[in-house]
Amino acid sequence: MAPELQEENYTTGPAEPPRKTRVTVVGSGNWGSVAAKLIASNTLRLSSFHDEVRMWVFEETLPSGEKLTDAINRNNENVKYLPGIKLGKNVVADPDLENAVNGANMLVFVTPHQFMEGICRRLVGKVKADVEAISLIKGMEVKMEGPCMISTLISDQLGINCCVLMGANIANEIAVEKFSEATVGYREKKEIAQKWVQLFSTSYFIVTPVQDVEGVELCGTLKNVVAIAAGFVDGLEMGNNTKAAIMRIGLREMKAFSKMLFSSVKDTTFFESCGVADLITTCLGGRNRKVAEAFARSEGKRSFDELEAEMLQGQKLQGVSTAKEVYEVLSHRGWLDFFPLFATVHEICIGTLPPTAIVEHSERTPKM
Amino acid sequence: MAPELQEENYTTGPAEPPRKTRVTVVGSGNWGSVAAKLIASNTLRLSSFHDEVRMWVFEETLPSGEKLTDAINRNNENVKYLPGIKLGKNVVADPDLENAVNGANMLVFVTPHQFMEGICRRLVGKVKADVEAISLIKGMEVKMEGPCMISTLISDQLGINCCVLMGANIANEIAVEKFSEATVGYREKKEIAQKWVQLFSTSYFIVTPVQDVEGVELCGTLKNVVAIAAGFVDGLEMGNNTKAAIMRIGLREMKAFSKMLFSSVKDTTFFESCGVADLITTCLGGRNRKVAEAFARSEGKRSFDELEAEMLQGQKLQGVSTAKEVYEVLSHRGWLDFFPLFATVHEICIGTLPPTAIVEHSERTPKM
Repeated sequence: MAPELQEENYTTGPAEPPRKTRVTVVGSGNWGSVAAKLIASNTLRLSSFHDEVRMWVFEETLPSGEKLTDAINRNNENVKYLPGIKLGKNVVADPDLENAVNGANMLVFVTPHQFMEGICRRLVGKVKADVEAISLIKGMEVKMEGPCMISTLISDQLGINCCVLMGANIANEIAVEKFSEATVGYREKKEIAQKWVQLFSTSYFIVTPVQDVEGVELCGTLKNVVAIAAGFVDGLEMGNNTKAAIMRIGLREMKAFSKMLFSSVKDTTFFESCGVADLITTCLGGRNRKVAEAFARSEGKRSFDELEAEMLQGQKLQGVSTAKEVYEVLSHRGWLDFFPLFATVHEICIGTLPPTAIVEHSERTPKM
Repeated sequence: MAPELQEENYTTGPAEPPRKTRVTVVGSGNWGSVAAKLIASNTLRLSSFHDEVRMWVFEETLPSGEKLTDAINRNNENVKYLPGIKLGKNVVADPDLENAVNGANMLVFVTPHQFMEGICRRLVGKVKADVEAISLIKGMEVKMEGPCMISTLISDQLGINCCVLMGANIANEIAVEKFSEATVGYREKKEIAQKWVQLFSTSYFIVTPVQDVEGVELCGTLKNVVAIAAGFVDGLEMGNNTKAAIMRIGLREMKAFSKMLFSSVKDTTFFESCGVADLITTCLGGRNRKVAEAFARSEGKRSFDELEAEMLQGQKLQGVSTAKEVYEVLSHRGWLDFFPLFATVHEICIGTLPPTAIVEHSERTPKM
């Protein structure tokens, strides 16, 4: 991007009222690009926002030799992670993280979760004190003492408020403007949640605010464990009845686990898009389900590591590592008996139980 | 059945303690036969129940010339409605309704819902005053003034208590002992609910009691309307994201409609098997979904009547008639705006809106 453009957009001259809100998207993968597209359509439309949406891009060189940021800014298209979709002319890719967030009033975090600690460290002191943040990152870590929420990491490291946006959001379907929903979880300031809703909502993307950050964020992580269980049922060809029962027991364990960790978590959150809808999408499609199905079909002949390497080109399944982390929490707190589905998924993944155990054990769900 | 056998089983001689509970299943279709199988395995096992389970059969003559009841009693198998599955030697088919219920302490109603009024009329004065009933009948009628609950019909007509059992219960899957769950809805007497749980539960069929007859029963009916919506999404090839969103909005309307009709209905009921799990099963498989998909694919060239005739051999879809009945309630009470999905399903079924309206209208769901 040319320095003139940067200056033109990032200084507030007399022509521009100083109170327009500036938005930066930190991340530019598949979902990040779709988020930038949604936001950019709204900043153009809403006078309270500055038109330009800056998008931080982890710079790569394309096979053509062109830089990814240059390609995005030339075509208004993320040719690598969201080919064929116009992001909007007002999306500006920037490879410089500090520059990208400079002057922003609202920050959208949408990177792989393992990058967030490093990114936060780089941003300390570089963002406005009153900046508002939102995390779209599904799959925080669940450490033995409890989950390490990405929204908490951002809040604590940067000393800022952080909401979350989760839901049944297959990026490629939203990119082609198929109808979908999402849930914004917020902590206290409803007016901030409303501003996020305004920034993301379109006629085909309906966003609902819920005062329950932890509940919304935990849904996005724990559903991957249930998707592994659903995949086992598919691999064992047990039918829709059993699959629906396992999904229901999974939803119940998601709810119970979240509420036992955070007493503030609300039952109603699990009826939102981040809850039941995302669970359904993930258990119907999704790679966690798919690899787990292949695992069950292999009848113990192939490990998850092997299948992941073959089916996911070296990526690791979030469901498998989350199941392990959840197991450690359950074991550490003496809760294993209350969560037979979660516990059994992990034991099947590591090979100490056969896939058929998913129903034999889940049916032991205690009444809570 | 030989008269000797009848006498042997239906008089209480000195060899038999008089307080053993006798169970009769009224109905012998696909689900009725599976229910008889589940119950018969438990009456054998539990000393508080009389071994024999009587099953009332609407008599038919098989192509072989044999009576259906004779065939069932000879083979312990309902050769017409559940071929290949042994019901248990202690299931006795009886073509005489009054005889079948005579002396029974627990009655299980599992007939097509349109037969229930006639059956109740025939049973007045023929059942024990303290008999306990349960209805497994999904698809009660929703009249303009509100739903005509089958459990209420049974209670009112016979002056007896009536529970309900609903859930993600594809009969043929339970018949081959695949894992599944169900929900018993009861009104007041928890000890009676527990007795039904005991009578139905097996290692592969998990039954949970919930104090919410109306909520449980309404789930079983309203899910068929949502399945029609899900079928439209499938026919339009809108993807899993949109389908999950529509199912979620459907679940939300099921909950809101039930609660607006009966203030006693509980949110938590919709997390039970009768709620989210049955909804998932019905929206994944099921004939309501299937015919609705064909309807959407036909792009207005074929009516529901035509497709039903072709695909269901003359049977009518419950979802279509329930959608009409629900529409009448909504219209009568001025609630149409609060239930865009329910209302739109009906308008698509009758051809006043195109199938694409299912997402355009459902997204207007008001915040309730």
